[in-house]
Amino acid sequence: MSEMWFTEQHAPSGSSVGFRVRAKLHEETTPFQTIAIYDSTDWGRLMVIDGCMMVTSRDNFLYHEMMVHPALYTHGAPRRVVVIGGGDCGTLREVLRHAEVARAVQVEIDERVTRLAEIHFPELCEANADARAELRFDDGVRYIAEMVPGSADVIIVDSTDPVGPAEGLFNEAFYRSCHRALGEGGLLVQQSESPIAHLELIRAMRTAMRKAGFRAMATLPFPQPCYPTGWWSCTMARKGPNPLDVFRAADADARTFPTRYYNSGVHRAALCPPEFLRVALSES
Amino acid sequence: MSEMWFTEQHAPSGSSVGFRVRAKLHEETTPFQTIAIYDSTDWGRLMVIDGCMMVTSRDNFLYHEMMVHPALYTHGAPRRVVVIGGGDCGTLREVLRHAEVARAVQVEIDERVTRLAEIHFPELCEANADARAELRFDDGVRYIAEMVPGSADVIIVDSTDPVGPAEGLFNEAFYRSCHRALGEGGLLVQQSESPIAHLELIRAMRTAMRKAGFRAMATLPFPQPCYPTGWWSCTMARKGPNPLDVFRAADADARTFPTRYYNSGVHRAALCPPEFLRVALSES
Repeated sequence: MSEMWFTEQHAPSGSSVGFRVRAKLHEETTPFQTIAIYDSTDWGRLMVIDGCMMVTSRDNFLYHEMMVHPALYTHGAPRRVVVIGGGDCGTLREVLRHAEVARAVQVEIDERVTRLAEIHFPELCEANADARAELRFDDGVRYIAEMVPGSADVIIVDSTDPVGPAEGLFNEAFYRSCHRALGEGGLLVQQSESPIAHLELIRAMRTAMRKAGFRAMATLPFPQPCYPTGWWSCTMARKGPNPLDVFRAADADARTFPTRYYNSGVHRAALCPPEFLRVALSES
Repeated sequence: MSEMWFTEQHAPSGSSVGFRVRAKLHEETTPFQTIAIYDSTDWGRLMVIDGCMMVTSRDNFLYHEMMVHPALYTHGAPRRVVVIGGGDCGTLREVLRHAEVARAVQVEIDERVTRLAEIHFPELCEANADARAELRFDDGVRYIAEMVPGSADVIIVDSTDPVGPAEGLFNEAFYRSCHRALGEGGLLVQQSESPIAHLELIRAMRTAMRKAGFRAMATLPFPQPCYPTGWWSCTMARKGPNPLDVFRAADADARTFPTRYYNSGVHRAALCPPEFLRVALSES
């Protein structure tokens, strides 16, 4: 066959997702991982890290909007936001769309992810020069551990899968640091893999978050064609007694920035778990 | 590589979905199409028609529940149901879970689909012997055209893609037949492909449904890992002035049969379109 495809065969789930590509534009091995960039026929650019699809130009809006807007419209006044990982800068861009945000720090361990995003995904990096943004290239686990207690309103963990560099972002010790760094009512939100393929991981994350002191948890599913099974999720956890199923819907409806997936109906919908997820998570 | 994978490369969207397989269990060419059955490592059996993934044992519950329960809980008293296509019998099984249903006719053009489902997906066929069920192997377009006017409460079009044998199920003439066959308040529900890859098809379907006399339309997205982009939809259309956003939620909550995806929250959630879909469908 004369066509070229980039295909990620995801061994744990026995499923694969692929895209037809025109060319591999770049590949390099950093101290942390191997990053490749492809040009696809229908999905724009692809960023692939260690063989795992990270971002496509066409469908990243689903992930980035859901990692940001539900949490920021749940917090009453999100002024101080920290993004752990998120090197493609798409999450940071969505955070900075919120006028309430006074400061957003992105802590990505691998500067090359951001430098390649600036070249191949310039639209995701368009807020990098915002005066409220600070781009750090550092270890997110250490950064959170060293934060002044109560100094963040929202922490967004936008990482790769829980193997390799991101492994330390999926355990109780890290969540304990997050809990301490957050102010009262503060929110932690983390990508939590596929509802259908990674149910045990989601349960383990929630158990660890609860042990770390978080009381309310919500796992929000959303479609994501470029990830295994095409179905993904983020999990929100909140410090203090405030619930997670009440949000600033009127503010979401009155938003002045563009979204392609998120709206207040989608936010409410994401809080309605599929039956198997409701049952599986009712004890965790 | 010693592993075997079945991969569907979906040319129109430039994306692929695949599953790791152990063996091809069967393949035959019928007068209508070529049907293959694979045994997969993580998704149970796969049914593939003309190279397109149709059903896996593991994820078909998403599709089958969403093709049936929203429509049947929207109709006030769904007694007479017709399934066009649906040869794997999973849709028929979900229909027959509703005690209100007095008669369910399945009209599948290719009897071999059902015979192979009986062997390889016996769980989907477990309601085939229900006294209320009638399995016909016939042309669905002709069947609907010849129905007594007003004699169906719900028509479910559970077909392959709009090419090949299913082409006649995606046009105004067919929808006009459906409209005539339905009683007042009756519902047509049809699988309507991927919200992100087939937006033009969804718009064209809704336009044709409207021209055929349907007034209210709703497109409900749901995850479906085995279909291109992992994100799929069904579109409901209703005869008469009744709305589509009101349903028998109390009955859905009180259901006595098992579901794995559907519940009343999921039903409400599916009626909240993502922003791009809301905008795209606001004129159709």
